[in-house]
Amino acid sequence: MFITFEGPEGGGKSTIIQRIGDRLRGEGRDVLVTREPGSGTVGAKIREILLHSEAIDSRCELFMFLADRANHVTTVLRPALEAKKVVLCDRYSDSTVVYQAHARGLDPIGVRELNAYATDGLTPTLTVLLDLDPEIGLKRLTTKDRLDDEPIMFHRRVREGFLIEAKRDPNRWRIVDATKTVDQVEFLCYAYIKEILSHEQDPLPFEGLG
Amino acid sequence: MFITFEGPEGGGKSTIIQRIGDRLRGEGRDVLVTREPGSGTVGAKIREILLHSEAIDSRCELFMFLADRANHVTTVLRPALEAKKVVLCDRYSDSTVVYQAHARGLDPIGVRELNAYATDGLTPTLTVLLDLDPEIGLKRLTTKDRLDDEPIMFHRRVREGFLIEAKRDPNRWRIVDATKTVDQVEFLCYAYIKEILSHEQDPLPFEGLG
Repeated sequence: MFITFEGPEGGGKSTIIQRIGDRLRGEGRDVLVTREPGSGTVGAKIREILLHSEAIDSRCELFMFLADRANHVTTVLRPALEAKKVVLCDRYSDSTVVYQAHARGLDPIGVRELNAYATDGLTPTLTVLLDLDPEIGLKRLTTKDRLDDEPIMFHRRVREGFLIEAKRDPNRWRIVDATKTVDQVEFLCYAYIKEILSHEQDPLPFEGLG
Repeated sequence: MFITFEGPEGGGKSTIIQRIGDRLRGEGRDVLVTREPGSGTVGAKIREILLHSEAIDSRCELFMFLADRANHVTTVLRPALEAKKVVLCDRYSDSTVVYQAHARGLDPIGVRELNAYATDGLTPTLTVLLDLDPEIGLKRLTTKDRLDDEPIMFHRRVREGFLIEAKRDPNRWRIVDATKTVDQVEFLCYAYIKEILSHEQDPLPFEGLG
């Protein structure tokens, strides 16, 4: 059960993920909360470069995100999923398609192929888009990194990009209005996740029978 | 005029490049000596991660090298070549094909495609392979990084990989026996470079004429 949270800055992803994680743990589920970029020692160093360096070439930036993702998939995500944990991840492949292709202008087909290579095909079961106007989102931020400092047009392309991606695969995506109260957003996200969890198949009790 | 130097560890690449650079400068040429990984602020941070982290996933490692290369091509190599400098570069795309594909076992076709994307097609005019038995090369090293600490079989695959790559494109590659004296190695490298420089075409004196 691999659930990702996506969306423009200031949509409250980290708060919502923590709350959902606590709820699911309260139900006795084994939950892993994680994020991209920046998991583990190598990931933390990559995150530092990505968020706090001066100008970075677009392709350099893309490859850094992919390096972080490859590391995250191998060392964190796959082991957690194999241990049957519910994995809640703050940003994943869709962020790269949106930021590097929709917003920066790199070829989206190339970015998708590179993502598939970096993840070895690991795709989320469910992706929740916390959607909001970037003008509202940016006002909510208390600290800013290199990407937050991009001009407002960049952030508009980011929002549009996420909405386009969500429409491409409505089975996987759910869109939540992130301008609602935190309680309302949490309730909607939780409902979507419970819907998926209710479809979980238990393994056949007698393997190979029938 | 883009000249790269490749080969196993301990082949004396950096010494030879410095000497060749001095010789060419002595002839009045504008020379840039550079290396991968690790050019510029971002590159230096990537180099630090690559050479001094503990275990790194193979694909993560590949993407980090590509990130460094994309940055190097855009910010250092292309501007220097456009300024008509002779560029001498310590390791480039061929190292990635050899280390990540031949030695680590990643798909060489994929690595070549990724290289082409990272470099935007920038290929060396000449590549000099400083070839030597890795057992001799490793003994010459005074300090070791993460890659130098790989088992000897890894370094044997590296040497074989470079020889295979050199045979794939004999027009671009020249192989020099790096067990010869530094003076002899320098002489051979210099001769190959002069051969290429002698083929340089001056721009037509009257553009569009004839």
